Amino acid sequence: MNINNEKIVLASRPSGMPSHSHFRFESTDAREPENGEVLVKTLYISVDPYMRGRMNDRKSYVPPFAIDEPLSGGVIGQVVSSLSSELEEGDIVIGNLPWQRYITAADVSLRKLNPEAAPITASLGILGMPGLTAYFGLLDIGNPQEGETVVVSGAAGAVGTAVGQIAKIKGARVVGIAGSDEKLAYLKEELGFDEVINYKTDDLQQSLKKACPEGVDVYFDNVGGEISDAVLSLINQGARIPLCGQISLYNLEKQDTGPRIQGQLLINSALMKGFIVSDYASGFEQGADEMAKWLREGKLKYKESIIEGFENTVDAFIGLFKGENIGKQLVKVADPEMI
Amino acid sequence: MNINNEKIVLASRPSGMPSHSHFRFESTDAREPENGEVLVKTLYISVDPYMRGRMNDRKSYVPPFAIDEPLSGGVIGQVVSSLSSELEEGDIVIGNLPWQRYITAADVSLRKLNPEAAPITASLGILGMPGLTAYFGLLDIGNPQEGETVVVSGAAGAVGTAVGQIAKIKGARVVGIAGSDEKLAYLKEELGFDEVINYKTDDLQQSLKKACPEGVDVYFDNVGGEISDAVLSLINQGARIPLCGQISLYNLEKQDTGPRIQGQLLINSALMKGFIVSDYASGFEQGADEMAKWLREGKLKYKESIIEGFENTVDAFIGLFKGENIGKQLVKVADPEMI
Repeated sequence: MNINNEKIVLASRPSGMPSHSHFRFESTDAREPENGEVLVKTLYISVDPYMRGRMNDRKSYVPPFAIDEPLSGGVIGQVVSSLSSELEEGDIVIGNLPWQRYITAADVSLRKLNPEAAPITASLGILGMPGLTAYFGLLDIGNPQEGETVVVSGAAGAVGTAVGQIAKIKGARVVGIAGSDEKLAYLKEELGFDEVINYKTDDLQQSLKKACPEGVDVYFDNVGGEISDAVLSLINQGARIPLCGQISLYNLEKQDTGPRIQGQLLINSALMKGFIVSDYASGFEQGADEMAKWLREGKLKYKESIIEGFENTVDAFIGLFKGENIGKQLVKVADPEMI
Repeated sequence: MNINNEKIVLASRPSGMPSHSHFRFESTDAREPENGEVLVKTLYISVDPYMRGRMNDRKSYVPPFAIDEPLSGGVIGQVVSSLSSELEEGDIVIGNLPWQRYITAADVSLRKLNPEAAPITASLGILGMPGLTAYFGLLDIGNPQEGETVVVSGAAGAVGTAVGQIAKIKGARVVGIAGSDEKLAYLKEELGFDEVINYKTDDLQQSLKKACPEGVDVYFDNVGGEISDAVLSLINQGARIPLCGQISLYNLEKQDTGPRIQGQLLINSALMKGFIVSDYASGFEQGADEMAKWLREGKLKYKESIIEGFENTVDAFIGLFKGENIGKQLVKVADPEMI
């Protein structure tokens, strides 16, 4: 087969913020599919903050990426050649796949998408991993009740935007923390957040006190560090704190130190729990169904930041840590072909 | 009435370790009981680490003690005069009562003890607040499973000794951390702890690694600070951490800082929850019944450190923070009279 294929491999492990030097583009073969396999052309690549953890050589949620091997994650593609009885040429599929222009994959590792049901990219965002992360972390751990105050950090990201909206659906008051006025305006005006705080320009502690006059019942933590210290100083009796991410720390080169939180959890009988979306794998179908229903009913909205071109994948990834994206960050590699 | 009554009041609020100067002994009247009241002669006073928090003028589990007012807590006494239809002279009662030699109290604020069922002092320890604290914190939050590793700090205290034994009843491997070889010997030889560590003389991190070759599934935290940092560095996927106390911090004069724990909870999908025994008030009867059953079956043992004399109550209390007690620390004020 004569396809100009290309992959992005991990060249070396960053100790702080990742840069282009930690990645390498390589040309690679596109192997013909064997029985039960398909050849997939990549359409969209999802870049997500959790991938930073996989660049380290230590235990995290998931095993580390290997040096000289392609990075991988959520990818949407189109079948261009099939030796599978389940998938045919033209089918749009999603899977956990390497960062390559073309991928040969077993059909069982892919899920077929129905482009009529929802825009295909929603499966990498609001109806996919980030949306389900928000859904299960907020509802199972946070369990927000009507009238309670829910604070979400990283509020303008793929997970945070979903968290705030689901909390509103449950009747909570929602306070979002993000890093630009453009993000705040989106959260408040488009998504209906009750209060928004710019952690870069506002006095965080004072703004939080004002935004949460009755304290904080649920804190959905995407960022960690000093932002979380400030929120946690305001928790109420019985507060719940789903730990979803700690993006402020992923590129930290030293030990993350600060006030120990145990005393505060103790006197408030508060619960803090880490999770990863795969903890809830058995509920994915139910969760995705309910999210899709809310989407159809107009109760959930979503936004995508799309960078065009496989060659810009690394920039899109690095941009996550600079707070460049609003909503889900995607890389568009190619348009689907009508077959 | 001509009774030589005495009370211990809070003279001032300590900023670090409490000393005698923060307390004051005062003589006081013993008021004759009115309708529905009894006059109680104090037999035993319970001193507990949580009381340190009530000496501060800030929100904790329970409201602060007031300056110039008596401290209060678990007290066992004997009715010496009754205008109650529920209690009669000679009855042994328990209640949350002021530190006084004699107390006039409403009968509804007291619970009558049956001295035939168990030694009366057990109601301030293994069958009382500390025992129930261990029972609910360990079973509801820690939820230890057969073969799992449970680590408990403050292991030789009233709560810790119960936690370790309940974990053994549930089939877990139990590792206790305490501060003297006498305590360790008691835990291992009398109570059947699998491993014990002296945090004052052992290399904590190394001893913990050796004692927990398969990591830590449940960490019942009575102490906080660096001991907890060391244990938490070893938690397993899905670990549970009941936060019961932070005795190492109660007398700290500055902000408690250290490694932030959120990242560690996150990558392990671990749960950390503060609690106070009153969170489980609706289950007290069931919990006390099961503990009493284990006690009768010889599955639970307990030890008391008893200091004699009302005048030594403050010493007994201060001794808690010097690690002087093994098991439940009590002050014996008087013997019950046979009536």
